[in-house]
Amino acid sequence: MRTGGVLNIIGKLLLLLSLFLLTPIPFSLYYQDGMVKMFLLCSVLGTMMGGSLLALFAPEDDLGYRDGFAVVVLSWLGLALLGSLPYFFCGAIPSFIDAFFESMSGFTTTGSTILNEVEILPQSVLFWRATTHWLGGMGIIVLSLAILPLLGVGGMQLFQAEMPGPTKDRLAPRIQDTARILWVVYVAFTLIQTVLMMLGGMTFFDALCHAFATLATGGFSTHTASAGYWQSGYLEYVIILFMLLAGVNFSLHYRAFAQRSLKPYLQNEEFRFYMIIVGVATVAIVIANMAHAVYSAFGNNLRDTLFQVVSMITTTGFGTADFDQWPSVTKVILVSLMFVGGCAGSTGGGIKVVRVLLFFKYARLQLRTLIHPRSVGAIKLGNQKVPKEVMISILGFFAIYIGVFFAASLLVTAMGVDLVTGMTSVIATLNNIGPGLAEVGPSRNFGDLPQAAKVVLSFCMLAGRLELYTVAVLLTPDFWKMARRPVWRWELAQKREGRLQK
Amino acid sequence: MRTGGVLNIIGKLLLLLSLFLLTPIPFSLYYQDGMVKMFLLCSVLGTMMGGSLLALFAPEDDLGYRDGFAVVVLSWLGLALLGSLPYFFCGAIPSFIDAFFESMSGFTTTGSTILNEVEILPQSVLFWRATTHWLGGMGIIVLSLAILPLLGVGGMQLFQAEMPGPTKDRLAPRIQDTARILWVVYVAFTLIQTVLMMLGGMTFFDALCHAFATLATGGFSTHTASAGYWQSGYLEYVIILFMLLAGVNFSLHYRAFAQRSLKPYLQNEEFRFYMIIVGVATVAIVIANMAHAVYSAFGNNLRDTLFQVVSMITTTGFGTADFDQWPSVTKVILVSLMFVGGCAGSTGGGIKVVRVLLFFKYARLQLRTLIHPRSVGAIKLGNQKVPKEVMISILGFFAIYIGVFFAASLLVTAMGVDLVTGMTSVIATLNNIGPGLAEVGPSRNFGDLPQAAKVVLSFCMLAGRLELYTVAVLLTPDFWKMARRPVWRWELAQKREGRLQK
Repeated sequence: MRTGGVLNIIGKLLLLLSLFLLTPIPFSLYYQDGMVKMFLLCSVLGTMMGGSLLALFAPEDDLGYRDGFAVVVLSWLGLALLGSLPYFFCGAIPSFIDAFFESMSGFTTTGSTILNEVEILPQSVLFWRATTHWLGGMGIIVLSLAILPLLGVGGMQLFQAEMPGPTKDRLAPRIQDTARILWVVYVAFTLIQTVLMMLGGMTFFDALCHAFATLATGGFSTHTASAGYWQSGYLEYVIILFMLLAGVNFSLHYRAFAQRSLKPYLQNEEFRFYMIIVGVATVAIVIANMAHAVYSAFGNNLRDTLFQVVSMITTTGFGTADFDQWPSVTKVILVSLMFVGGCAGSTGGGIKVVRVLLFFKYARLQLRTLIHPRSVGAIKLGNQKVPKEVMISILGFFAIYIGVFFAASLLVTAMGVDLVTGMTSVIATLNNIGPGLAEVGPSRNFGDLPQAAKVVLSFCMLAGRLELYTVAVLLTPDFWKMARRPVWRWELAQKREGRLQK
Repeated sequence: MRTGGVLNIIGKLLLLLSLFLLTPIPFSLYYQDGMVKMFLLCSVLGTMMGGSLLALFAPEDDLGYRDGFAVVVLSWLGLALLGSLPYFFCGAIPSFIDAFFESMSGFTTTGSTILNEVEILPQSVLFWRATTHWLGGMGIIVLSLAILPLLGVGGMQLFQAEMPGPTKDRLAPRIQDTARILWVVYVAFTLIQTVLMMLGGMTFFDALCHAFATLATGGFSTHTASAGYWQSGYLEYVIILFMLLAGVNFSLHYRAFAQRSLKPYLQNEEFRFYMIIVGVATVAIVIANMAHAVYSAFGNNLRDTLFQVVSMITTTGFGTADFDQWPSVTKVILVSLMFVGGCAGSTGGGIKVVRVLLFFKYARLQLRTLIHPRSVGAIKLGNQKVPKEVMISILGFFAIYIGVFFAASLLVTAMGVDLVTGMTSVIATLNNIGPGLAEVGPSRNFGDLPQAAKVVLSFCMLAGRLELYTVAVLLTPDFWKMARRPVWRWELAQKREGRLQK
């Protein structure tokens, strides 16, 4: 690993985040919440952190495959650390671990919170909280569509061919091109949703914050009552639509934009399966709610059901209805949706629709092979044949998923947390959903958990968000055996001089 | 599929079971519970059922690969049906579905019960209940070591080389040889355990019934208080030892007997991993119980912990301690053990130690491949290289496992069962454990569930016990497309005559 080159990139990202730390200042001025100096301080601290990394380590051109893992994990870790400062400095969250948890929950677009009442945060800090989601979502799209396929992580190599942008050999230019194209879509969606929500009566501030949280499938709201605060059918349907869009592979959005056609969606098998799951789950829950007479009006039943289904499968975690009152079969469906998650290349978390799809395609192939032993079957996704390596990579993904789930559940319950709270808090963070059940249920929060448990759950958010493999690779001793001592900038300069003199 | 030949085998098995239906009669005479006529009637009915199948369908020599699936599933189904008659006719279980559930729970060595109080059954019927476990256990050993490897089901082909007995090409003789050898071990263990328990003060009846339930990792007891009834440390340690042995691949026992050496155990990687899990889980739970001062005496802590750990991992389901009082981290461990299950080729249920072992070996290999992309790694089990096909077969196993789990949970909760009861009752039956949590917890039973839910759970027991694939194959339309109209015995006779005349 080229430690110096990796740290140089982290430095650049910290500088970029320092710029973003200035964006809440206009809101602070408008709402007069007195946070201007605080955000300036955070930005200066970030600039110093990033600047010193840049000063110490020179960029290295030939960053390779292995460095990718370190860049990805250290970026999220670094951004979460710097991003936690406003929570800590504004005075509303006195524990640094709590601030870090909230920040990690933002950047991983999880949406779990340690806050009992969201309203205690100043407006500008609430805006920062939404911004961490939005930036995290941006990162995820690029990560899953441009970086992970190159690293061959967890079956994502399947999407190598699907990336927009010119194909080049070197890592960095390709990622930059892909990122630029995808971000145009992301920004466009954000603007459209903001405008649509303002038309529904939201303030610019609330609309922007909710658009940030929706497109990132994060789930942080500016109100403790979450999206249910407005009691507006129009607003809820707008949020449903954009959650649904955020759960789709962003390269499909780009191609649909570019071709001005819906064909790219309809031709994509993962998208079709995603819509089928949403449709079937919605119909099933609506019927179950009708059978138990939960709602008197069909319209309310449909709207609340659709909202919960989409909020769960995209792992956004916004709430409008208290589904604890719904019949138990609906909870089995909602919990299953949490595990499915969004499409690959979306901002949604979870296992991903495509992995679930391939999983069951393989089971079907296996059954066919048992019945016709001489038949040679192959798995296809769309028109593409899926190589065995991808399947094995997905098998490995499940193994690591279960391993992390088990280890984290053990650690959290060993700290005295009860069984349901402990296990669902791990599920909620590992799948980047937000709320769990019992003590961390939709109307409760993660604040009362032991501090050490919050650290474990922060790790779960990171591991889940970065598709497990990335974090797991960094935890193997083998990886660190290959790490080189970082080359300081002056050493590199000396070397270059030496080379020039020769 | 050669339907006639398959039904002929089922007929033979029913005749065999009719003989076993006579074995409770001596107990009925001894305890004077008035069940002699009832068991005679059941035996006669069974003889008639089996006899008519034999009369209608002639044996067919060239049964193949595909017929194996039908034989396996229909055997268990047929035996469970015939075996439910004593419960129904004795008058203690007035619902036939309840009787069938109890019988299926016996033959699949699950141990879930619909009985509120076990003692309401006459002694001879209690003996029959234990006998269904014992016969089911016998069936499982042969199924997993002789039949499934030939069918290539769920990675079991790995054990093809491990089977004792001469290797022949035709299916039937090979299975018979293997069965004979393994059953000697099974019967020997049963006798030894019975004698050891009688030495500890149990009556012959109780000792035999508990030996039956232990060796089959079933869990039916002759008392509602289960193995805790005797409050005897000696008896509990005897049960621990034999549960542990029942969770081991029986071909290892055979080889250890034959070689008069412990080497076959120590050289087996699955066995070592099994012992490591039991050891680590026991130490962890003992420490957690100490930290929470659950027990005043270390000896009681160790004994209860060891008992629960072994009862869970082997999916026996006997209870001695109310572990609901234990700290929550111990429950995470115990629930995880339920999923692991026994070794392949044992009578234990669950996913099986070897699958879990290979699962994590593959995850490690995947991580290594990500770090060193050019390295060519292979998975080894012992000294044997594990082919990719086996891994993919295991992936398929997990997919079907999750599919069945999800579908069954949906059905059971849709019938109005609450979430925790519904999901844990599926886990308890699919893994062939016995008790679940909440309404079906260790001190409760399955009796109050809706009748339709009991049918679904009976299916789960069957599917789990037969390694899922077997049942899943029979549920595919493809399989039935290949089924031929059964050839009646007289048609076959006519054909033979025709051939002779030519």
